[in-house]
Amino acid sequence: MENAKVTLQDTIENLLKNKRYATLRDILTTMNPVDIAAIFEELQNEKMPVLYRLLPKDIAADVFVEMEEDTQQFLIHSLSDTELKEVLDDMFLDDVVDMIEEMPANVVKRILRQSTPEDRKQINALLKFPEDSAGSIMTTELVILRPDMTAEEAIKRIRRTGVDKETIYTCYVADNLSKLRGIVTIKDLLLAEDDTKVSDMMDTNVISVNTYTDQEEVAAIIKKYDFLALPVVDTENRLVGIVTIDDAVDVMQEEATEDIQKMAAITPNTDKPYLKIGIFSTWLSRIPWLLLLMISATFTGMIISSFEDALAASVALAAFIPMLMDTGGNTGSQASVTVIRALSLKEIQFKDLIRVLWKEIRVAVLCGISLAAAAFAKILLVDMLLLGNADVTTMVAFVVCLTLAITVVVAKIIGCCLPMFAYKLGFDPAVMASPFITTIVDAVSLIVYFFIATNILQL
Amino acid sequence: MENAKVTLQDTIENLLKNKRYATLRDILTTMNPVDIAAIFEELQNEKMPVLYRLLPKDIAADVFVEMEEDTQQFLIHSLSDTELKEVLDDMFLDDVVDMIEEMPANVVKRILRQSTPEDRKQINALLKFPEDSAGSIMTTELVILRPDMTAEEAIKRIRRTGVDKETIYTCYVADNLSKLRGIVTIKDLLLAEDDTKVSDMMDTNVISVNTYTDQEEVAAIIKKYDFLALPVVDTENRLVGIVTIDDAVDVMQEEATEDIQKMAAITPNTDKPYLKIGIFSTWLSRIPWLLLLMISATFTGMIISSFEDALAASVALAAFIPMLMDTGGNTGSQASVTVIRALSLKEIQFKDLIRVLWKEIRVAVLCGISLAAAAFAKILLVDMLLLGNADVTTMVAFVVCLTLAITVVVAKIIGCCLPMFAYKLGFDPAVMASPFITTIVDAVSLIVYFFIATNILQL
Repeated sequence: MENAKVTLQDTIENLLKNKRYATLRDILTTMNPVDIAAIFEELQNEKMPVLYRLLPKDIAADVFVEMEEDTQQFLIHSLSDTELKEVLDDMFLDDVVDMIEEMPANVVKRILRQSTPEDRKQINALLKFPEDSAGSIMTTELVILRPDMTAEEAIKRIRRTGVDKETIYTCYVADNLSKLRGIVTIKDLLLAEDDTKVSDMMDTNVISVNTYTDQEEVAAIIKKYDFLALPVVDTENRLVGIVTIDDAVDVMQEEATEDIQKMAAITPNTDKPYLKIGIFSTWLSRIPWLLLLMISATFTGMIISSFEDALAASVALAAFIPMLMDTGGNTGSQASVTVIRALSLKEIQFKDLIRVLWKEIRVAVLCGISLAAAAFAKILLVDMLLLGNADVTTMVAFVVCLTLAITVVVAKIIGCCLPMFAYKLGFDPAVMASPFITTIVDAVSLIVYFFIATNILQL
Repeated sequence: MENAKVTLQDTIENLLKNKRYATLRDILTTMNPVDIAAIFEELQNEKMPVLYRLLPKDIAADVFVEMEEDTQQFLIHSLSDTELKEVLDDMFLDDVVDMIEEMPANVVKRILRQSTPEDRKQINALLKFPEDSAGSIMTTELVILRPDMTAEEAIKRIRRTGVDKETIYTCYVADNLSKLRGIVTIKDLLLAEDDTKVSDMMDTNVISVNTYTDQEEVAAIIKKYDFLALPVVDTENRLVGIVTIDDAVDVMQEEATEDIQKMAAITPNTDKPYLKIGIFSTWLSRIPWLLLLMISATFTGMIISSFEDALAASVALAAFIPMLMDTGGNTGSQASVTVIRALSLKEIQFKDLIRVLWKEIRVAVLCGISLAAAAFAKILLVDMLLLGNADVTTMVAFVVCLTLAITVVVAKIIGCCLPMFAYKLGFDPAVMASPFITTIVDAVSLIVYFFIATNILQL
């Protein structure tokens, strides 16, 4: 169905082929830069420069910023120096830096050559901040006001200098040593009397971060306080930039993806969208964990081997192994995933360990009883009555259900404790999720199973 | 260590006990409403009204909005009608509606009685929108401009009416029938000449959503286009409200949590933070999936039972079952989780099925070969040479490794296809994650294992 109708993509490609440039230009002026960039992604390389040159001047840079890195790279190669300079001048410096970080050295050199000396200096400074730090995602283009300005003077200053700034909605007040003194929103300025002093209306309880603060913390602060932007200061409390909410949203999304990947035993790989990541690189992000977990699973196998005699004596026991292992793994990962998410949303901390444990134990007892009861009914009705399996006795059913209940409780305890301890020790709790917990719980459930079986059934 | 130093919480509680109200008031004026609300959460109920009455008038409502529902409810009970009216007047209507949705009927009645007739009408209208719709998260307090105003007139209007509006940074242009005609930012207005007409500078390519649009889509649009707010229109394209980015950020976070919970076989439960959710309600969100998965795991058990003879003939085979099942489950969930996340970030769609499949198959072959080689080396070195296990022959090692390679490929195929088909059929792909895939892959791996074993080892 999706293929049945002519898409905008088709229309634009047809117009390009037929050189209907005036029409194309009209279409492009009605579109949002994000959507235009998406058209470029599906376009054949040789058609890109033509379409790019048709873009209205005032949105060309916006479209460029939204493109994937390989599209940007191809376009840079086909642009003249003057055209490249125009794009760069219209881009915000933090976007230029983001782009440069992904480009090969020769492209970076060409970009730097086309930047103004002042921009070049700032780009080089921004490039030096560690990846994932506030410094690496901040923008240095912000409106700075002085404490002794009046509201009227402040608005005049914004009208004069605001055009090149990423946001004018929050303005920063700094003294002549660049020290951050307060913030004032444009709403405050507009709603104030003309002659009110900035120092009288600014909020002096400024929450700021350091250039080296982790981007995840930056995003969490912006979300917590509903900020539109967060000021970044250097070690001497001098205002050096701001992180805007749109970048914080990207960080939050990226961190959620990384957590999800780690929980599924994948080394995080969020630089590119799924289909753009190479086969080898995908393999590399998945194989280490698979190998590690495979090796640990062989211990589970060794437990089974060491109870060979018990298994041989009561063949019915083996059939319940997958059910016990799977249920243990599932209950454990429910607890671990819930705790990991609560940790990363800062809903709980290590000091809540006892409360978490107490909660999980009570839930586990409820789950254990319900599951054991259901399993007992199922074994009685299906295995014994319906299928008439003579190997499955009431005692076997009892052993299985007792194991199940104990496994569920142990699994929940392990599931909530491991991520909490990992967090306390400074490791990423997300790594302690399903696959890791499953492996441990598998071993535990088997040991419990065979211990109970050998004792109760006297094998 | 965290308990060794006196916290701000302790200090505030001590000051409260000693009735040092002036000092408390000073402390509160330096704090952000979000942090003050956190203090209330840890406070004994009877102390709350005292502290609340010490709050500076201009932030009391902000603090109230940030509190947990049970704290709000307790405070409402202890506030006089006049005090309650003051709080309500200072709150944005969308926040009042969010709060009302969680409150018992008698509290709701009291709140509505203290609202102005106009607010009451709007609150009732907002309450009618389905949960999770744009209508339910939008605010109706926005700045509306007319197309024929000049920039100067527009700014005057904002200065006159803006104080009560949730955002003044994006203004909406509507004609006298309330139809949405365009948007103009305060940046555009400030940077324009005083006599420029709003209609000449407004952006007429407005992206808007309907009141019934799902909140997840609303958040995705805001993120995609880096909007600060998104207009909401009714079925006749009349502007009725806006969704601001802070609410969109909450939606994004909530949806990521829901996805993570679904992937771990938990019925989503994101209304309250982890420690506030009751034991019974936690049990209820976890038990249905555990029961379902336990029942399905018994099929895996039945497969083992039906190959009892093979297991009895070659006791070494049983020891490799956990390793095969776990590795299959892990590889499958890596693929499914990656695909689910890519679907929810709109990086892929159903039409990409073949590309996804082709990618996963190649990754699977790489993973399968590496894992089989590692397993073969491990069995040869550890089981045969080191432990001298006579049951484990080279042929057994071959059977295990061949099964492993096939299982990995099948697991990746199932792992990427199931979420894609669920998405196509309109189900939530997140439900097709780890536990579900694991159960299917377990069964497949055992069938492959016993099929290969009986044929190659001629059991």
